[in-house]
Amino acid sequence: MQSPLASSLPPFSAWLEDTNDITQQFLAIGGDPAMVSLAGGLPAPELYPCDEVRAATERALLRWGPQALEYGPVEGLPALRAALAARVSADTGAILGAENVLVTTGAMQGLDLMGKALLDKSELVISQFPTYLGALDAWRPRAPRYLPLDWHGGASEKVLKQAKFVYAVPNFSNPTGVLVPTEQRAALLRQVRGAGTWLLEDDPYRALQYDGAPLPTLLALDAHDRGSDPYDGPVIHLGTFSKTIAPGLRIGWVIARADVIRTLARVKMSTDLSGCMFTQSVALQLLEEGVDRRLEPVILNLYRERRDVLCEHASAQLSDWFEWQVPPGGMFVWMRALDARMDTDVLYRHALAERVAFVPSSVFDPASTLKSAMRVNFTRAGPERIREGISRLARATSRYLATLA
Amino acid sequence: MQSPLASSLPPFSAWLEDTNDITQQFLAIGGDPAMVSLAGGLPAPELYPCDEVRAATERALLRWGPQALEYGPVEGLPALRAALAARVSADTGAILGAENVLVTTGAMQGLDLMGKALLDKSELVISQFPTYLGALDAWRPRAPRYLPLDWHGGASEKVLKQAKFVYAVPNFSNPTGVLVPTEQRAALLRQVRGAGTWLLEDDPYRALQYDGAPLPTLLALDAHDRGSDPYDGPVIHLGTFSKTIAPGLRIGWVIARADVIRTLARVKMSTDLSGCMFTQSVALQLLEEGVDRRLEPVILNLYRERRDVLCEHASAQLSDWFEWQVPPGGMFVWMRALDARMDTDVLYRHALAERVAFVPSSVFDPASTLKSAMRVNFTRAGPERIREGISRLARATSRYLATLA
Repeated sequence: MQSPLASSLPPFSAWLEDTNDITQQFLAIGGDPAMVSLAGGLPAPELYPCDEVRAATERALLRWGPQALEYGPVEGLPALRAALAARVSADTGAILGAENVLVTTGAMQGLDLMGKALLDKSELVISQFPTYLGALDAWRPRAPRYLPLDWHGGASEKVLKQAKFVYAVPNFSNPTGVLVPTEQRAALLRQVRGAGTWLLEDDPYRALQYDGAPLPTLLALDAHDRGSDPYDGPVIHLGTFSKTIAPGLRIGWVIARADVIRTLARVKMSTDLSGCMFTQSVALQLLEEGVDRRLEPVILNLYRERRDVLCEHASAQLSDWFEWQVPPGGMFVWMRALDARMDTDVLYRHALAERVAFVPSSVFDPASTLKSAMRVNFTRAGPERIREGISRLARATSRYLATLA
Repeated sequence: MQSPLASSLPPFSAWLEDTNDITQQFLAIGGDPAMVSLAGGLPAPELYPCDEVRAATERALLRWGPQALEYGPVEGLPALRAALAARVSADTGAILGAENVLVTTGAMQGLDLMGKALLDKSELVISQFPTYLGALDAWRPRAPRYLPLDWHGGASEKVLKQAKFVYAVPNFSNPTGVLVPTEQRAALLRQVRGAGTWLLEDDPYRALQYDGAPLPTLLALDAHDRGSDPYDGPVIHLGTFSKTIAPGLRIGWVIARADVIRTLARVKMSTDLSGCMFTQSVALQLLEEGVDRRLEPVILNLYRERRDVLCEHASAQLSDWFEWQVPPGGMFVWMRALDARMDTDVLYRHALAERVAFVPSSVFDPASTLKSAMRVNFTRAGPERIREGISRLARATSRYLATLA
């Protein structure tokens, strides 16, 4: 990005020159009714529990009074931390207390705090490749070096020892939708333990599993092997209510050993002083009342149907040009071009001309060189819009390929 | 701060070694009923408008529906941005539109975003001295150099030209409570314009003026001289509802020229993806319904009385050892020791033993060497607690001085 400032004023910080505005573009596109957006990672807004939130707010304000409008403890509302600890303990078998939980402004703030707490300039991160755009954004001010994580056990101990942390999204990875098998998770854990590094497990999609049984998280596997009370391993686990309740509440959390939580809290204090006790008290109410658990089957049915509509229509319209696996969960289908000449950055411009948007693969690559794939979302638009979007995408691809011939 | 980690895991980022946990200490002290805390900058919670927030939430959810639970535009809820632009335009005479407003998680996030957007490592900031602890915290990851701002026009153009920005709190500065006269504000503006640098005006206390008429903000003065539509000057102005509605909503804002807002939004996107549309829709309701304007006289009467109680009791108990001006606004009295041997870091430990807390001056100094003063809050505790706190502080001072004799 070029600095837009008049030359008479000091320039913006150097790292901003390496940013892009792709997420802002997607948000703008989402507001254009003529466009079919298969780009963002947005939930279906018709499922947001407005009535439940209104009732929960009423109960939360009666329960907490002025405390709900106070500067919080930096770490979060103590009762919400305890409830999240109990929830994640039940899900994973890890033994966790409130001291193992930091409440954040969405899981995205967890990524920002991790970067601030662990990365000095140009340090090494081992990350799934391709990887989540938001993580790259969060860590860009520190200009980390990246090496790809090989789930098949290819990372050498020497390389892992040089890394500040490993970043992984084992459940329906963004952007690829891959569900990493248990044996590969366990192998990574053994390597991480051997090398003595941190393992950041980003787990926003866990509840969005459409086929098969859930697999144990890295946190669960490590806690099981370790058996420590409370948990004291190297896994730092991020979760969120953005996919199961509503993103606009901005409630995420970090689960980690207590000394890591204390440090992240100190970093959070210097970032926004404290989180929002008002929404945290509402989220606690929703959690205690089981609202997200009741919503889950409704969400799963809706998203599974949309995934299937998208994949079926794509099989009819796009399979000459792209290949993909039907993802067992998450929000995205990762489509890889069959023609090596195809550049999805260029396809993206053709797609916008046809009034359909996706996310080109280059933004999921720290070096921006991966041009052969695209991420297509199936959770936001309804079935008719999805079919229309795929048809437009087929027209855009056809036009683009004509220019290559 | 020492890294608490086992040596087998990578260490935390280097800048964390320079942090302190003083704000966390104050938050913990605030929860101890045996302690009289005159430390934090906390409002009186009995004034938080719980009923109004409950009613506003109900109306906001009816008005906005799922939009209130959606990922927002990064810049904030458009209607709230427009309402804040109108409010600040009316207050300052600056011509502002929604494009001049970024909604933040409290004004603190504005400080964090400014640091990320403008500071590369070790760059120069010209700041009021002593200065706000939270600003020092926010910018610490970039290890800026600091030079003091001299309101009497002492900063040379050469020094200003080297600075990335000037940081000022002209209304009842934290920690000193000083109200900077209009002529000095105007002189600073002339210097800033001559040198061509940014001017960050942090204005959380504007509404808390107990004596005299409000003075024009730096934004108002610059907009008046400039007459541009929309505002395109070097002032970046921070505001908040934390002092006039409630801090737990975490609603602050940045006012600046549109290109600066666009850049700060890009930085915010990489920090927490977007703010909380739920609380922003509630804040809009409260703003439109004039809740903060109705609360202002109630707040002013309560805080003026508490300030006077504190200063009167301090005159009787502390005036042999400290001098201070009665602040015309804000939340703090800045007490300077009359005995040059006095070290308020040491006094602080004696005070804790007497179960009273204040903030020692060292934390408001980037070099931590200012030991001769203390910041005493008068907004949080009621009159009886304030009197008790001052009496305890007198006992602590007396004991401390006995050790020096």
